[in-house]
Amino acid sequence: MTGGGRILLGHGSGGKLYRDLVRDVFLAEFSNPVLERLEDAASLATSGRVAFTTDAHVVQPLRFPGGDIGRLAVAGTVNDLATAAARPLALAAAFIIEEGFALAELVEICRSMKRTADEAGVAIVTGDTKVVQRDAADGLFITTTGVGEIVVGHELGAETVREGDAVILSGTIGDHALAVLAARGDFHFATVLVSDCAPLWDLVEAAVVAAGEALRFLRDPTRGGLTMVLNELAESSGLGVEIEDEAVPVSPAVRSACDLLGYEPFSLANEGKMVFVVAAQKAEELLGALRGRPLGARAARIGHVTAAHPGRVALRTAFGTRRVLDMPVGELLPRIC
Amino acid sequence: MTGGGRILLGHGSGGKLYRDLVRDVFLAEFSNPVLERLEDAASLATSGRVAFTTDAHVVQPLRFPGGDIGRLAVAGTVNDLATAAARPLALAAAFIIEEGFALAELVEICRSMKRTADEAGVAIVTGDTKVVQRDAADGLFITTTGVGEIVVGHELGAETVREGDAVILSGTIGDHALAVLAARGDFHFATVLVSDCAPLWDLVEAAVVAAGEALRFLRDPTRGGLTMVLNELAESSGLGVEIEDEAVPVSPAVRSACDLLGYEPFSLANEGKMVFVVAAQKAEELLGALRGRPLGARAARIGHVTAAHPGRVALRTAFGTRRVLDMPVGELLPRIC
Repeated sequence: MTGGGRILLGHGSGGKLYRDLVRDVFLAEFSNPVLERLEDAASLATSGRVAFTTDAHVVQPLRFPGGDIGRLAVAGTVNDLATAAARPLALAAAFIIEEGFALAELVEICRSMKRTADEAGVAIVTGDTKVVQRDAADGLFITTTGVGEIVVGHELGAETVREGDAVILSGTIGDHALAVLAARGDFHFATVLVSDCAPLWDLVEAAVVAAGEALRFLRDPTRGGLTMVLNELAESSGLGVEIEDEAVPVSPAVRSACDLLGYEPFSLANEGKMVFVVAAQKAEELLGALRGRPLGARAARIGHVTAAHPGRVALRTAFGTRRVLDMPVGELLPRIC
Repeated sequence: MTGGGRILLGHGSGGKLYRDLVRDVFLAEFSNPVLERLEDAASLATSGRVAFTTDAHVVQPLRFPGGDIGRLAVAGTVNDLATAAARPLALAAAFIIEEGFALAELVEICRSMKRTADEAGVAIVTGDTKVVQRDAADGLFITTTGVGEIVVGHELGAETVREGDAVILSGTIGDHALAVLAARGDFHFATVLVSDCAPLWDLVEAAVVAAGEALRFLRDPTRGGLTMVLNELAESSGLGVEIEDEAVPVSPAVRSACDLLGYEPFSLANEGKMVFVVAAQKAEELLGALRGRPLGARAARIGHVTAAHPGRVALRTAFGTRRVLDMPVGELLPRIC
């Protein structure tokens, strides 16, 4: 492919260089029959209810322990579909690339996208690429969009949540945000922090099957972390949430880094976790289904829904004290996804 | 809304500032019941065949005569769906914003998106926003993704094209690319050049109804222009295309600017045009349907499909000479969409 191994402005044109990039990189890496048609719009067969979600990814650096922007982009979109109990049907990927970006790195990132999409049983069926001149973007941004087929018949959402429902978390929190910060060299830390970045459809499907109509709400705690998800749940349901501090799984490495840096794991972003609200009588079935899979091995029942303090999230410590977990205000950690 | 009228890094967080931005700008401007649920994935009801397309928009400047990045983003996606004969069902919009970007400008651009979506009878039902630090992006990038419902039962595409089919263009070419160049101040020109940026679903629907199963192929000539669309048609169909130079509508302003600057209108990008290939016996019906609508008033039959020179596009001039219209190679005009 022309360009001396680097992206040229011409790779963003509608001309021959652009077609070379599409064929030699995107088609080669994402290889599937729908994409190969190279139509402006991909055709999918579907029926029933469709979920639709989009996410821009601007993570810096592009690679970090446990993942890279490509894995993040695919996992983030699959997981957003999963919050609607939707099996991923197809993904779209739009690339904004800075002139001079190394082609070899683009290929590596595409491979990572393909691997992650394969894990989730979905294909990247359509896409777009724009190239901007040097300094008009920071290396590479990827926007992924997904369509999925909703596999449940009942309504899900905060408004379906009831007093006494159990709150379940699929695993440890804080891993992604701290892994990215560490990869930036923002701090030096002896233990390796590894992002949890992973597509969760399989895990969510198992939970959906186990809980059936008792499943009320699911959401992935990305930017704003667990704090944000629980506050939105409290606000939209008109009920309160009570969380047991000790019950929330946090890895020793994240715990130490948080102690050292003054962060709270509750507000840190995750990219491979899911929060479930389920009627209490089905909580153990759902937990069992999660724990039976590697990505849910550390799943825990972390609290419950209460009518005691509507709109608020309370954290109960091991010493029996309680404090309010307020919504985070601004941005402590930009560009972690 | 906090931030002194400018986008802060915190507007890209998952916290309160982010929610304010989503509510005060995106929800307020795109207002519709699906988006208002603020779910990570929007739910759509659908059945049958679905078309799916994505496009990143990096146009510079953000505003130009005839449009802006918001109108471009919505029209571009609606038109890509239209190439699959798909009625737009829902749009997603992902914003990458440079820290310090003026909120008032973001609101104006969102209004333009809403107006354009209304014209096309579609809503923006899901979205995402990331904010990057100063100089890590150039103001604003918008990636739009669309899902649409395919309204024809028969297959469309270059491989269905036959010798003798008519090639029809919905109006003048070159307007968009030159309007953006002029808005950049790259050249001074007395006549105002106005972008053709418009959503074409209504026009395409009329054409689809008029041509029925005689319609073989449709494609919007954006980057790479008419030259690119016709070359791809020739390549994928294994047939040739013959175009009458005189028959291709070009506005006097575009003609003069091209003469002055040495551009060829055939390779310039358009954002409100469609190329149709239709069985010859239905060409007049399709033309009539296009001409009956404002966006198709200057529609013309510009050529035909031939077995004479497979894989090639020939341009026949008024003097009877012929030359090959080759695929453009690199990028003459970066960031026009």
